Amino acid sequence: MQYFITGAAGFIGSSLADALLAQGHRVTGYDNFSTGLPKFIEKAKKSADYLFIEGDLLDTHALKNAMAGADMVFHFAANADVRFGTHHPSRDLEQNTIATFNVLEAMRANAVERIAFSSTGSVYGEPEIFPTPENAPFPVQTSLYAASKIAGEGLISAYCHGFGMRSYIFRFVSILGARYTHGHVFDFYKQLQNNPAQLNILGNGKQRKSYLHISDCISAMLTACDKSNEKINLFNLGTDEYVEVNQSIDVICEKLGVSPKRVYSGGQRGWIGDSPFIFLDTKKIRSLGWKPQYDIRASVKDTVRWIGENEWILEARK
Amino acid sequence: MQYFITGAAGFIGSSLADALLAQGHRVTGYDNFSTGLPKFIEKAKKSADYLFIEGDLLDTHALKNAMAGADMVFHFAANADVRFGTHHPSRDLEQNTIATFNVLEAMRANAVERIAFSSTGSVYGEPEIFPTPENAPFPVQTSLYAASKIAGEGLISAYCHGFGMRSYIFRFVSILGARYTHGHVFDFYKQLQNNPAQLNILGNGKQRKSYLHISDCISAMLTACDKSNEKINLFNLGTDEYVEVNQSIDVICEKLGVSPKRVYSGGQRGWIGDSPFIFLDTKKIRSLGWKPQYDIRASVKDTVRWIGENEWILEARK
Repeated sequence: MQYFITGAAGFIGSSLADALLAQGHRVTGYDNFSTGLPKFIEKAKKSADYLFIEGDLLDTHALKNAMAGADMVFHFAANADVRFGTHHPSRDLEQNTIATFNVLEAMRANAVERIAFSSTGSVYGEPEIFPTPENAPFPVQTSLYAASKIAGEGLISAYCHGFGMRSYIFRFVSILGARYTHGHVFDFYKQLQNNPAQLNILGNGKQRKSYLHISDCISAMLTACDKSNEKINLFNLGTDEYVEVNQSIDVICEKLGVSPKRVYSGGQRGWIGDSPFIFLDTKKIRSLGWKPQYDIRASVKDTVRWIGENEWILEARK
Repeated sequence: MQYFITGAAGFIGSSLADALLAQGHRVTGYDNFSTGLPKFIEKAKKSADYLFIEGDLLDTHALKNAMAGADMVFHFAANADVRFGTHHPSRDLEQNTIATFNVLEAMRANAVERIAFSSTGSVYGEPEIFPTPENAPFPVQTSLYAASKIAGEGLISAYCHGFGMRSYIFRFVSILGARYTHGHVFDFYKQLQNNPAQLNILGNGKQRKSYLHISDCISAMLTACDKSNEKINLFNLGTDEYVEVNQSIDVICEKLGVSPKRVYSGGQRGWIGDSPFIFLDTKKIRSLGWKPQYDIRASVKDTVRWIGENEWILEARK
């Protein structure tokens, strides 16, 4: 199979490329390096089955040409800056909603019929049901990021109905592990490197969140693509547990051997639109035989380990 | 109050403008006449409290200037061509999703804090619960039109959370009555005018649909804006009944005094993405004291009457 990956130099895209190449597939990676990193594609580029094209999803001509010959698209490119959506509202519209539209149009032009898409558990807004299943009550969006992802889901579903495509839509919890470049572990690591005596925490530290290790995320997506064959295949991806931010901090501090004073900004939410409790029901993906190898504690530890071995990332992603 | 109405020369926008002017408010209407009709604003233009500005929602500069001084926005402008979304996929993205983003940005620029939005019952896709409540299970989108409306809902909700706005989101069934310009009554009337002996019907005629009269639609929106004061006020608008397309045809034929041969294209759906059963739960809006004055039969009759008295519309909207 020949796969086309958008966001190919990102955390998830580059990890998937490596996995697909290891399985003997051909991969074309597409990325504009707006947040992706050249280091993440170094390994893939050593493969004769990998082609990297530097390009932007808003350049519809380049995108269409780059996608030629693909059997399936993994569309991961996105503005993943959840916290600062209100600082630049057009970014989510352009990089997420319009970019997804462009990917779908490029697929039509190239007669590519399968797409996998990275959505987010944040599309459930502030749900009332935990763990939250895929068919939870119709949610109200609370962040521009999630609104752009729900727009992408809607576009993809409508294209499947209207143009006979097949889609795999994954609603992720936060992903951890090697090549992790943003989020609370990253922020806390960086803070503690600068000052091991104090840690500033957004909110009251009691936000409950769920995390999934990148290797489990990749295996879940490949399992779904292999075993589920509906027109629209929608899956929550996560572990069947959650932790408080404070518990996550315990693991990070233990791993780093520090005991900082914890200073809280206060409030139930870390930022506007932050969901104080994310915990997804993953029965559907588990019913296909998939299960995660890492629990959250192990994922956090492995992430701290990876950052420790790759401190260049702290400079690369300021 | 000073209201800003997008799609002001359209069916619903022009009707609302007349209602607001009758209540003594000031109204600025904005429309590019892409589907709106100059005749529909003739009455409003006679009022000293009405200002009409011909402009496009994709012209962000003109939009921002036009909105100056508004207390609240009614955003009705949209590509409402549900059936032919797959013929021009970019139209829903531009006219609905991006246009809604532009309206929200113009509101930010002008510090306008309240918006009402015309969404659609089609956002429920093909629901499993009837009548379908606002908190029905998270739906899968089946049409580009509905996908663009759910994108608009998401943007508006996220802006309410992020920028302290208040919104009124209305999920409409199909609206009938004076100034109705597209939909099944229009199509059937036109066909029967050309050939009273035969009527071509999309699908098997057994699609079950719900309709609301424009006067009831206007009173429902004004009731919600008056009596509901959440950050995000989301309401289904419809009657508590539905009819088969065939029953609707009975009413039309009776009113016109014709008995055509009915020829069906076949299938459960009239077109790709058509929902074979639309019936919304309207308990929430009724709980505010609103109830419709027209049942569906009376709405269809009144629509046939209006088209009969305004046959110019058949030429104006080919």
